Amino acid sequence: MINVAVLGFGVVGSGTAALITENAELIKNKVGDDVYVKRILDLRDFPDSPFADRITHDINDIINDKDISIVCEVIGGLHPAYEFTVAALNAGKSVVTSNKEIVATLGVELLEIAAKNGVSYMFEAAVGGGIPVLRPLAEDLATVNRIERVDGILNGTTNYILTRMKEDGASFADALAGAQKNGYAEADPSADILGKDTCRKICILGAIAFGKLLDVKGISTEGITALTLFDIENAEKMGYSVKLIGSAFKDDSGKIVELVRPCLVNHANPLSRINDVFNGVSVRGNYVGDVMFYGRGAGSEPTASAVASDVIRIASGAAVKTVPWVPATAEETGCAADAPASYYVCAETNDVSLVEKYFGKIDKLVADNGKIAFIPANKLSLNAVNKAVAEANADFAVSAVIEVL
Amino acid sequence: MINVAVLGFGVVGSGTAALITENAELIKNKVGDDVYVKRILDLRDFPDSPFADRITHDINDIINDKDISIVCEVIGGLHPAYEFTVAALNAGKSVVTSNKEIVATLGVELLEIAAKNGVSYMFEAAVGGGIPVLRPLAEDLATVNRIERVDGILNGTTNYILTRMKEDGASFADALAGAQKNGYAEADPSADILGKDTCRKICILGAIAFGKLLDVKGISTEGITALTLFDIENAEKMGYSVKLIGSAFKDDSGKIVELVRPCLVNHANPLSRINDVFNGVSVRGNYVGDVMFYGRGAGSEPTASAVASDVIRIASGAAVKTVPWVPATAEETGCAADAPASYYVCAETNDVSLVEKYFGKIDKLVADNGKIAFIPANKLSLNAVNKAVAEANADFAVSAVIEVL
Repeated sequence: MINVAVLGFGVVGSGTAALITENAELIKNKVGDDVYVKRILDLRDFPDSPFADRITHDINDIINDKDISIVCEVIGGLHPAYEFTVAALNAGKSVVTSNKEIVATLGVELLEIAAKNGVSYMFEAAVGGGIPVLRPLAEDLATVNRIERVDGILNGTTNYILTRMKEDGASFADALAGAQKNGYAEADPSADILGKDTCRKICILGAIAFGKLLDVKGISTEGITALTLFDIENAEKMGYSVKLIGSAFKDDSGKIVELVRPCLVNHANPLSRINDVFNGVSVRGNYVGDVMFYGRGAGSEPTASAVASDVIRIASGAAVKTVPWVPATAEETGCAADAPASYYVCAETNDVSLVEKYFGKIDKLVADNGKIAFIPANKLSLNAVNKAVAEANADFAVSAVIEVL
Repeated sequence: MINVAVLGFGVVGSGTAALITENAELIKNKVGDDVYVKRILDLRDFPDSPFADRITHDINDIINDKDISIVCEVIGGLHPAYEFTVAALNAGKSVVTSNKEIVATLGVELLEIAAKNGVSYMFEAAVGGGIPVLRPLAEDLATVNRIERVDGILNGTTNYILTRMKEDGASFADALAGAQKNGYAEADPSADILGKDTCRKICILGAIAFGKLLDVKGISTEGITALTLFDIENAEKMGYSVKLIGSAFKDDSGKIVELVRPCLVNHANPLSRINDVFNGVSVRGNYVGDVMFYGRGAGSEPTASAVASDVIRIASGAAVKTVPWVPATAEETGCAADAPASYYVCAETNDVSLVEKYFGKIDKLVADNGKIAFIPANKLSLNAVNKAVAEANADFAVSAVIEVL
């Protein structure tokens, strides 16, 4: 019998306990032993739950229980998740988590503590919900490919809002209110709509792709709050959908660049077709080319699937040995605003030749009611675009600058 | 130093040797040891290749070489691939292959021989080219989810032909000729266009999803040769793209059903957006919901990525222990024609009420020039549809019956 504890009996914790119980027979066949949820830590009681008798309010009931070998930390946030994780690892227990904030922020330290104790610290559920993506990236793609870039739609709430704006012509505010009404956005949606959640996830993906963890606070992060329906509709006319994209890549000098911002994604790119609360992660390797992983990026049951898959890896002795992460140095970290890219620009003028005076030759344009939305033919750094915007301001205002992926 | 041999220096073999050589530094970092292509078996000589001095025409140079621990069988076909694989496994070498025919046909026996010898037999490259799909299915999804179904676009040649028909309005014959001209179809394209290649791949996916290998000869397999541009265009009007789909699922009585046939795929299903030579595999689990894997399903470099990822798994000691397959018994195997599904039907009549007389209430229809294309509102088994078609023949002919996924 392999005993598991679950810390936090919320959305993910209840799904994890239910999965391990409901699919027990299947799991036993794979592991060769019973896997049992012995203890669940929560501040609350759940008298009507089938797990009522396993609830404890004291973390020491779990840390001191020698029969418990695997702990699922699905509390979220940094504290007390950090203290509980350290205590469990130091007590010789493996820890599995869905907590992207703690992995992105404190992953270096926690992986080191796990390695020191000869146990596992695993977090497949922290990125892409139920989609198996961290392990295929780490163990299948990055072992044999030089990873060139990773781009992902990593947050279901913002993708739902953008889908409603595109499909229903809703304003950002109305789409957000609808998302909250449907339970897809929290009462305080700032971590989602400001791009912070996506930032943590691309930081984790980047660490796996390139072996170095960037400082999450240094990652250029722009959310979706400034997007207008006007620009989203212009983008569709030009053959693009607007998506919130987290990217990690190496620039021309080999430095790691990570950033989060809305992007115009070409309709030919399968990421453009990922709608509603679904997530997608695209990986480019020097041999494999482009690979994409798609599925439900959040929710009780899909996230539980990823948590449980880590538990079962550990339970069956198949967990790959813990490889500590290395923090990226300043020299290894590139600047997003210096990397050349294509941009969508919306200028408040009718005069194409005036636009070309500041932005050079134009590739595509939509002219509409005193505005010209366009994509400069040549790639420019964001710094160069911003300089052109400032100079153009003498002749016309620019209402939007959005990267084209 | 871990020495590898490659059997067959064709498209996949040359890519595999190139990858292991070009990405040697990266691989060494992951494995902790050098991985070296020591020998390549081919009937031909390659005097201008950088691997010229490692070519041998004698399999015994590899089988008897105690320094070679991993053999990549990328010859294709059953013979002599089978004899070489058995000899290598019995000599205590692990074998990696991209050969779907041999895995689908002789996988039970070869996995058993591998297990008996305490070595690995791995075949990530046999399905979906470079896409990591077999391992995430086996080790992440199927360990904790009851897999409900797997549906895949598994053959790039047929998907390219169908994309050209849809996008260019080309006939099947013209699209096939174009595919041959562009090197996407072989001179004898029958294994692709008749669905045999897809059949082998869904057979492998089904074995991993459900733990039982069906007899590949018993899998109902229909290719794309009977599809008309008329039906493809009608499908698009109704909101579907026509794709060649391999499916494996459990029917209502728990029996495993596998089949290959063209399907109408709803535009809301991401499989419908997979175009040209790309592949996609959709997996539904009872907790994770729908997950999809997407990428290049063939070609030298993507397939080499999958072959090499298996090699590196074995080289780093991370290969999961070989689990022999069990053949499905007749009692465990369901009949595809008995399973209820939705169907697109094209009737050569103008009379909707006459159509409803034989097929019941109609959900969607396109009426065009003496023909009515429609989808019956209720799900029917293929046997029931065929019976209705035979009865309707008294009043009108039916020119097409295509499943709606």
